[in-house]
Amino acid sequence: MKIVTISREFGSGGREVGKRLAAALGVPCYDNEIIEMIAKENGFDENYVANVSEKSIEAAYPLTIGNRFAMPPLTLIDQPIRVVSAQRQIIENLAAKGDCVIVGRCADVILRDYHPLNIFVYADKESKLKRCQERAPAGENLTRSELERKMKQIDKNRAKHRAMYADSKWGSKETYHLCLNTSGKEIKTLIPALAAFARSWFGDEA
Amino acid sequence: MKIVTISREFGSGGREVGKRLAAALGVPCYDNEIIEMIAKENGFDENYVANVSEKSIEAAYPLTIGNRFAMPPLTLIDQPIRVVSAQRQIIENLAAKGDCVIVGRCADVILRDYHPLNIFVYADKESKLKRCQERAPAGENLTRSELERKMKQIDKNRAKHRAMYADSKWGSKETYHLCLNTSGKEIKTLIPALAAFARSWFGDEA
Repeated sequence: MKIVTISREFGSGGREVGKRLAAALGVPCYDNEIIEMIAKENGFDENYVANVSEKSIEAAYPLTIGNRFAMPPLTLIDQPIRVVSAQRQIIENLAAKGDCVIVGRCADVILRDYHPLNIFVYADKESKLKRCQERAPAGENLTRSELERKMKQIDKNRAKHRAMYADSKWGSKETYHLCLNTSGKEIKTLIPALAAFARSWFGDEA
Repeated sequence: MKIVTISREFGSGGREVGKRLAAALGVPCYDNEIIEMIAKENGFDENYVANVSEKSIEAAYPLTIGNRFAMPPLTLIDQPIRVVSAQRQIIENLAAKGDCVIVGRCADVILRDYHPLNIFVYADKESKLKRCQERAPAGENLTRSELERKMKQIDKNRAKHRAMYADSKWGSKETYHLCLNTSGKEIKTLIPALAAFARSWFGDEA
């Protein structure tokens, strides 16, 4: 079983690394697809799930009701836990289906029994800011300092989310097998080297 | 020009990574050889050079005279600076000679104009302790806590030594292109993957 998990700093291009690495290895890549599946299978609103699924449970509570139908208060409290639980099950189901690359969602912890290759993708602040500015959604016009604050907040949420699953720290190199710096690089230029590493890691001929 | 630099935590097996990676790539590996060359070319005592060359200049001063010949005080003060300077020149000469792997000695900073692939090798504390215990020099019988203190001190010296050359921080993943975790692994099992990465990084066919 060959499973690669990608954790990443916001703006480092980790998602692109995941997609391109999966393509190079000829396996599927799961990222937002997972959120959509969780949403559909549980009747939750997709945006709500996107919001919860990388946050800690507590952070999710202040959100307004995300379910498409009215709910009594007890169910509301239970909802983020159900999302996290559903997410775990879906990731396990995906892994059981076969080799894949999974981006984010603490897949490295959830799938630890599959012995995945766990990669962390990071970059220096300037590279991340540049990347975020180039790829800002239409209509988003954040100042540099707003963008910095957003980057920090998202990574902080990822770290908190991870703390629900494991003691090992998000973003700390000790947590991963391999850490890849994308600073000043075009992601696609890094993929042949990374794919060669992954193939060899799993004992395939290069 | 294909130059790989290896920085490493004490006990992580970084030196073995360097030797084996160089062998896999068919290029020379420079490590203690560099110290010996510095020593011979400058008439210093080899142990003295070994001691200075990974420490900060200040840390080197309290040492007793390392030169084989008596020196006036001014020359003594000048000596660590001469060692660091000689080390830099030798590393530059080695790099100019051709492709190679260089372990430690801040080669990543010294050779930055060669655009080396800079790798950091690390491991969790238990793995490093185990490795150090298995490879302790004959006659060395450190307790666990003594060994931990020694490991910390050596890494602290490496960090201080690096601070002479650059602002980027020793051991911080931002400083390197790739960070490799050797926890619980036999080094030789990691080499095919790492060599595949390095070859591909430099644009060679795998």
